[in-house]
Amino acid sequence: MLPTRSEKPRKMGMTMVMDKGLSIRQAEDLIEVGGDLVDFVKLGFGTSLFTSTVKEKIALYRAANIRVYVGGTLFEAFYHRNQLDEFRGWVDYLGCDAIEISDGCIEMAHAEKCEQIRKFSGSHYVLSEVGCKDASVEIPVEEWVSMTLNELSAGSSVVIAEARESGTVGIYDCDGQANSLLIEALMAAAGQDQIMWEAPAKSQQAWFVNLLGANVNLGNIAPDEVIALETLRTGLRGDTFHRFI
Amino acid sequence: MLPTRSEKPRKMGMTMVMDKGLSIRQAEDLIEVGGDLVDFVKLGFGTSLFTSTVKEKIALYRAANIRVYVGGTLFEAFYHRNQLDEFRGWVDYLGCDAIEISDGCIEMAHAEKCEQIRKFSGSHYVLSEVGCKDASVEIPVEEWVSMTLNELSAGSSVVIAEARESGTVGIYDCDGQANSLLIEALMAAAGQDQIMWEAPAKSQQAWFVNLLGANVNLGNIAPDEVIALETLRTGLRGDTFHRFI
Amino acid sequence: MLPTRSEKPRKMGMTMVMDKGLSIRQAEDLIEVGGDLVDFVKLGFGTSLFTSTVKEKIALYRAANIRVYVGGTLFEAFYHRNQLDEFRGWVDYLGCDAIEISDGCIEMAHAEKCEQIRKFSGSHYVLSEVGCKDASVEIPVEEWVSMTLNELSAGSSVVIAEARESGTVGIYDCDGQANSLLIEALMAAAGQDQIMWEAPAKSQQAWFVNLLGANVNLGNIAPDEVIALETLRTGLRGDTFHRFI
Repeated sequence: MLPTRSEKPRKMGMTMVMDKGLSIRQAEDLIEVGGDLVDFVKLGFGTSLFTSTVKEKIALYRAANIRVYVGGTLFEAFYHRNQLDEFRGWVDYLGCDAIEISDGCIEMAHAEKCEQIRKFSGSHYVLSEVGCKDASVEIPVEEWVSMTLNELSAGSSVVIAEARESGTVGIYDCDGQANSLLIEALMAAAGQDQIMWEAPAKSQQAWFVNLLGANVNLGNIAPDEVIALETLRTGLRGDTFHRFI
Repeated sequence: MLPTRSEKPRKMGMTMVMDKGLSIRQAEDLIEVGGDLVDFVKLGFGTSLFTSTVKEKIALYRAANIRVYVGGTLFEAFYHRNQLDEFRGWVDYLGCDAIEISDGCIEMAHAEKCEQIRKFSGSHYVLSEVGCKDASVEIPVEEWVSMTLNELSAGSSVVIAEARESGTVGIYDCDGQANSLLIEALMAAAGQDQIMWEAPAKSQQAWFVNLLGANVNLGNIAPDEVIALETLRTGLRGDTFHRFI
Repeated sequence: MLPTRSEKPRKMGMTMVMDKGLSIRQAEDLIEVGGDLVDFVKLGFGTSLFTSTVKEKIALYRAANIRVYVGGTLFEAFYHRNQLDEFRGWVDYLGCDAIEISDGCIEMAHAEKCEQIRKFSGSHYVLSEVGCKDASVEIPVEEWVSMTLNELSAGSSVVIAEARESGTVGIYDCDGQANSLLIEALMAAAGQDQIMWEAPAKSQQAWFVNLLGANVNLGNIAPDEVIALETLRTGLRGDTFHRFI
């Protein structure tokens, strides 16, 4: 039997797509084929600053019931320069309804990160991210778990488990293999609806679907992989075919 | 001298493109740039189920004289559930004129596979595929050859040599290197117009063009690689430059 | 502080995009999102011969103040067949305002290459390329430097340092790692405005931005990476975040 897929508004089985600078038409194409399947669009890193039609694009996404936020790296760039008011102004000018709070590039006390989550969660849907973008920094499992729980308490709706666009850091090793111990510890501590796993590579998406089923939350999906991901979620592609029969 | 390329309707030099969920406009773009070069579009694995505009898209392809079929994995998913009537209904509802019959994910007696080929070949153009999607399963060369010949006898117009979208199984090893012994045995047994080689990676496409010339049948080509492939076929890219001078 | 980016018409911080067969709409999309950021479009290898709407597409690029030229491999294919008049005719028919002169696939005396640069530079903006497409051929550093300087003297406006679309030859090793010695020798000999580094992979783009700053000339950029590259240039992506704070 094919698995039943959750529907919008979803709490599980969510898909977050990384938009690195799509044109208006390309965003319309994404909505045409995957509008019902995509729950979040992340305007990756600082790309929102360099896309002249970004405001119009965000309006299109939101009209399709897709939450939109700018990449956490942009939050960090403003934070690092003591310009959080300007950051809030930029996000509100764009019309984003969500915000990602991360510390993948900068040093930030965890209490301070939670304080930022608390502040923004009053006005925005907050996603926070745990994990360092530097492959040489390894966060111990217990610390990763406790940061995740603290951030949820502080007001994050979803905590993202970092992998970058490359899928070779955070919850994966440098070859893109998943860190099972870490992932199982996170699963045991938090609910499936509270975590989003970054899984840019097909093998990673399949790994999570095989482990956690069709309705796992997956992020950093490329725009042209949204339909292919749906076949993985439902066992209609070789990699997950045997999960659902 | 540049090699002469075959023209539609081709029996050799065919190109099969994998569509993993293109929008209507993206399909139109593919037709604009490569309509004369593309002979088949495969709606990869189960993606046809999740693309709301798929019927309209298929009509566009067929109007451009491109044969369209759904990925063999979808045939297998229906077959495995004893729903072949529903499969036939779905394919006919979509307006596909071709069908792929494969057993890459499931166990299926070869006689039974040939029986399915026989049945469908009465009403549809049939492509069948030899090769397992599981990298740990190796089919002996003689068996691969005899399966290919049996499936042609049973009614397949073209037999596809499996490589997946990744290009790392079937006729390639896990590093994507071609299995020369297998490929030469297939060439010796069947005609160039009877086999289609899946060759998703540029190095694989170049390898086949260097071995078999401009008019080799190649499949699993990404939509945005169709024109680049044409330069490989004609020696107007570094990788095959010296093949044709 | 974010770095200041150069503006059109640029001599430094130029971006060259590789177009392998975009449709008219896809070219319009590229112009919408990156028209101000893209200085050159290269119609890769021989693709200009197989794209029916290429003349219209070139007109679009040029109207957006983007220089357009056909890949050096096409120059070499015509040269090798003693058809340079036909090559000039093709380029002029297309409406390209620039020409790439290279010898990556063929043997050509350096004096002859410089002579071709001299001839074409009377009528066209000339880019010439140093580096062999064959990974087994290694050009000594001093020879690479002297060829670069000779070609600039002969009339090249910019000399391209070869990497192919794969980013695994020329200024990189087979793993895509940059050859620092060669690159520093070139930097010492010529101006930053006289060299364009092919850098198809993100890690290579980041490497050059970290070494030479925001306004380094980079080539072989994929069309859908133009905005992402801008975030690398300005330190708004993890890989170059610490370069500019």
